[in-house]
Amino acid sequence: MKTQYYTAVSLDGYIADPDHSLDWLHQFGGGDESSYPEFIREVGAIAMGSTTYEWVLEHHVYSDPEHPKAWPYEQPTWVFSSRTLPPVPGADIRFANGDVAPVHAEMRAAAAGKNIWIVGGGELAAQFHDRGLLDEIIVTIAPVILSGGAPLFTRRIATPPPRVVEVKPHSSGLTQMRLELPKVGEGGARAAAES
Amino acid sequence: MKTQYYTAVSLDGYIADPDHSLDWLHQFGGGDESSYPEFIREVGAIAMGSTTYEWVLEHHVYSDPEHPKAWPYEQPTWVFSSRTLPPVPGADIRFANGDVAPVHAEMRAAAAGKNIWIVGGGELAAQFHDRGLLDEIIVTIAPVILSGGAPLFTRRIATPPPRVVEVKPHSSGLTQMRLELPKVGEGGARAAAES
Repeated sequence: MKTQYYTAVSLDGYIADPDHSLDWLHQFGGGDESSYPEFIREVGAIAMGSTTYEWVLEHHVYSDPEHPKAWPYEQPTWVFSSRTLPPVPGADIRFANGDVAPVHAEMRAAAAGKNIWIVGGGELAAQFHDRGLLDEIIVTIAPVILSGGAPLFTRRIATPPPRVVEVKPHSSGLTQMRLELPKVGEGGARAAAES
Repeated sequence: MKTQYYTAVSLDGYIADPDHSLDWLHQFGGGDESSYPEFIREVGAIAMGSTTYEWVLEHHVYSDPEHPKAWPYEQPTWVFSSRTLPPVPGADIRFANGDVAPVHAEMRAAAAGKNIWIVGGGELAAQFHDRGLLDEIIVTIAPVILSGGAPLFTRRIATPPPRVVEVKPHSSGLTQMRLELPKVGEGGARAAAES
């Protein structure tokens, strides 16, 4: 069971452009090389922030308001927000707020051995990292420069660095990179042992 | 003859951290896999902004003020700045200001068929791009997240996207990616033809 932040990112570190658009990403197509089908098969619970949730509502569920589409995920989904947001009929969506740790415990139980996917954004993923609950960051790097938008992550993780487990270039131009995060306290424990 | 922006970058798009440090990069070592020796052999002229120049002075040339080191580049180097900066004795350093296009022509003549290296920062590289003078961005991606610092680039280049020419993961954890930039007007010309 891993908690994974799986997202696409521009070469300069943005997961959405300043207009909340993903056109820069969609131009590369899905493609047979996408790791998504294999990834989602192992996911047992999903977490997302309110901006991501509202993006899915606007661009997917209600993109044609007269003919709403189904919620795209089968897994139970926790939406973190301090605001009251509308649910989606027929979808297993649970609203959460505050400390991510107790919610992570609930998600873990619901996932029953499968992985937990943090969809975004960067601040929610960082909150899981703060509590030592984020195991991996899996980024699909798009060869574009956006020069602004929503940041990949909102904490520094540099020393010790994440460990690169996989780098997989696709013929579309996208490159997937998988990083294992240092365990929280790993650098600290080492520093303490040296002092 | 190509004009290349060759730089290291964090996974979230910063070429230096908020303290102007490169410790996050140097922890990965140089390594036999570095493309730098091969890259620099083909460089005939160098451009950098004032922040980069002052970084080289502080962290290399005058890192031990009583025993100054030699300027690290053999190639003629143009330093772009609106301020008056100190030269380095014995080094071929030329100060420039304003529009990059006429300076690029001078650099091109001096390079005599070899490449032009834009060392940084992101705004200087963007100014060459604005004038249609930047051919490639070659980034060495470090698997770290800095969450702030000096940006890779300060313009949007997304549609059409740069073309990925090479992705080369190193055993150190660094990954080099080479991107050919769309010719300026490529998207515009296409849009005009369609309208």
